[in-house]
This record gives sequence, structure tokens and C-alpha cells, in this order.
Amino acid sequence: MVVVDVLRATSAMVTGFDNGVVAMVPVAGIDEALSYKSKGYLVAGERNGERQEGFDFGNSPFSYVRELVEGRKVAISTTNGTQAIVAAKDAYKLVIGAFLNISALTSYLLEQNRDVLVLCAGWKNRFNLEDSLFGGALAERLLASGKFEVNCDSALGALHLYERAKDDMNAYLAESSHRKRLKHLNLAEDIRYCLSLDRCKSVPELKGSELVWGNGN
Amino acid sequence: MVVVDVLRATSAMVTGFDNGVVAMVPVAGIDEALSYKSKGYLVAGERNGERQEGFDFGNSPFSYVRELVEGRKVAISTTNGTQAIVAAKDAYKLVIGAFLNISALTSYLLEQNRDVLVLCAGWKNRFNLEDSLFGGALAERLLASGKFEVNCDSALGALHLYERAKDDMNAYLAESSHRKRLKHLNLAEDIRYCLSLDRCKSVPELKGSELVWGNGN
Repeated sequence: MVVVDVLRATSAMVTGFDNGVVAMVPVAGIDEALSYKSKGYLVAGERNGERQEGFDFGNSPFSYVRELVEGRKVAISTTNGTQAIVAAKDAYKLVIGAFLNISALTSYLLEQNRDVLVLCAGWKNRFNLEDSLFGGALAERLLASGKFEVNCDSALGALHLYERAKDDMNAYLAESSHRKRLKHLNLAEDIRYCLSLDRCKSVPELKGSELVWGNGN
Repeated sequence: MVVVDVLRATSAMVTGFDNGVVAMVPVAGIDEALSYKSKGYLVAGERNGERQEGFDFGNSPFSYVRELVEGRKVAISTTNGTQAIVAAKDAYKLVIGAFLNISALTSYLLEQNRDVLVLCAGWKNRFNLEDSLFGGALAERLLASGKFEVNCDSALGALHLYERAKDDMNAYLAESSHRKRLKHLNLAEDIRYCLSLDRCKSVPELKGSELVWGNGN
């Protein structure tokens, strides 16, 4: 099971691990997240794209700088991404996907050689384009290996949307609802970064209640 | 609210009304459908694409010939389509959509001049391509009027899939999951018919617990 919330929770997560985070606890509620402060965790997250009071930082991948996060544990709660992780926690394996780690993730999945289900966090339980594009991008890469086939319409639809968008995802998403939603927050740099490929090598994987750098075992 | 189940429930419904059905009662359960027999209704429907025992006919639009259905009432229960209608029965207005009545439906919606939500019946609560293509086709027509705008990613995604598929939807859907599912039932003729435009003029509308030929009032 691959959980994705491109803008911006899972993009922030993979960035965090690449910059030295040792573990992340995804929690659904804000109060629960704050309760981790006394245990020495950094606390991160947002609601509706904005940082919450008492949190060390919000949902921007740029918050996860090495100086701040190296060797630290982080409790994180976001509008959609962490809720999706909590909902899917009983999957055989749960890993975190983003455009930022898509090649590392593809290698991980090819090695596992199991069926792959992509859980798009979406926006408040609704479909969104950016997470579906990621699903399509991942499907394209897995299909190219010759070891996978598409067996549901949602993967096929996501693949076709990705084929339309991939030459310039930033432009494609300019008319999407979430881009419009984030526009007043001045997140153009965040979004450009979240849509870029292979800046990260980590494949965070859920072990018990924590995400750690996954090695497939 | 427009409910669509292109293959084949809502395609069968609009065909039925065009051929003289006076009312249809969508029911979720098979036993409930059969209970209408004693009230003089024809009973129609399927599960997993096949007609059920005791039913007058299944889900094929070609069953609804004028000789059989003119002046009759029909109780109908299908795998996905009627369940979607029952789930959405409290909408402001609930009308039935299909490629077969898309121009009549577009005119109806333009006259209503209200927000439009398309409920794609899908397949057992999952996304399918054919209903999403219909959503995209309807979005294209409403946008062309200049009176509507898209305000969610699902409509935008559906529109883009439709733009890719519209020149030959039959070929596009050849790789879809439902086409594969129906293949062993020899439904090529049904599918070709269900994907054709504007063979019907009815816009069935829910009034109380019955669908009737809608006039927008």
C-alpha cells in the first residue's frame, strides 16, 4: 500500500527522512500531536494548509531542514495525508510515496514484487488531481518494468491523466482546485518542489505506529 | 443531481421511457423488486451483469421494446445503478443520465440553471471509466454553454479523460475493467448502443419513489 498526499504531507515526509529524521508518528488529531512534545518530539502539521498553534512547523517540505530535524523524531498531523495513513495502517506494508521519491519507491516495489495499491489522500475525502497524477506516474513506471499490469479503471484513468500532464505538471495543475485553494498562501515554491522528481531517496515505511526509513524487510 | 450507470442501468432506463414506460421504481434489493410483480409491474434487473430468476428481463436496453413496455410500470434493481439512485434520493432533483439522452439532459440542466453534481454509479463502490467519461461529456457540454464552470478536480479529470476518449469511446473502453467483466456475456451490441449519443429524448426524474418522464417542474 502506497499512501500519497503530494501537496504536501508525503512530500514533506520523504524530505524529512532524507534530511535525517529518524522516525515520524502520523497522528490523526491535533491534540494527540501536541501530546508528543513532552516526549521530545518535534510536532508538525497543518489544517487547511496552515500551521497550527503550538506546532514546531507546518506542512512545508522546506521546514524539514537538516539543522532542525537530523536525529529527531517528529509527530505529524495534516488535513488529509496522516488521516490516510492512520486509515490504512493495517495494510501488509504501508509506504510513503511522492514525486520526490518515485524512483526509489519504484525500486522498492519491484523488489517486493507484490500487488500495489495506491491510496490517494485527496482533499477531505474527495478526489484530487495531484495525487491521481502520482498514481499514474507510478503505474507508468511499474508497467515499464514488464512485471506489472493494470487491473482496475482508477489506475488506467490516473495513467491517462498523467500522460496528459507529465510534460508540465505545474501548468496542468494550475487549474486544479487545490492549487487554487493554496494560492493565497504563496506556496508556488513548495508546489514546484513537490512536483519535482527524485530529489529524495527515502521510502518511509510504517513499522508499528512509526514511519521509519524503509528497507523492505 | 445526475445519476449515471452507462453500462447499463441508466442507459436501459432512458430507453425504457422513450419506448413508453410510464414509471420506474428503483429498488435496492432483489426480493423487494419481485414483490412488485403482484402489483402489475414488470420486474427488471441484474446482479453482476446477469438477469435474476423471476425477473421479466435483465439490464439490456434492448429488452425495453415498445411492444413489451408501453404503458407499463417497471420495478428495477441492478448491481450499481439503482443503489446509487436510492442513496441519492433526497437530492433537490434527481435525474437519470446516459450518453443516449445527453443532449436532452443538457437542455434540461441549462433550463434549471442550478449547480450540477454527477453521481457515477461505478462498479461496487469503485471508480469506473465509462461513467466518468459520461461526467466529462456532460461537463464539456455545460461548459460550452458559458453558463457553468468546473469547480472540482473530479469534473476536470473526467473532462480530460473524455477528451482523450471521445473520438472512439468503444476502442478506449476496450481495456477497461467493466468491458472485460462483461466480455463473456457477449454484450458488444449493448455496449455499442449504450455509448451512442442522443438516441433518446427522455430525462427520467425521481418524483417520490418513482422515476417518471421529467419536465423540470
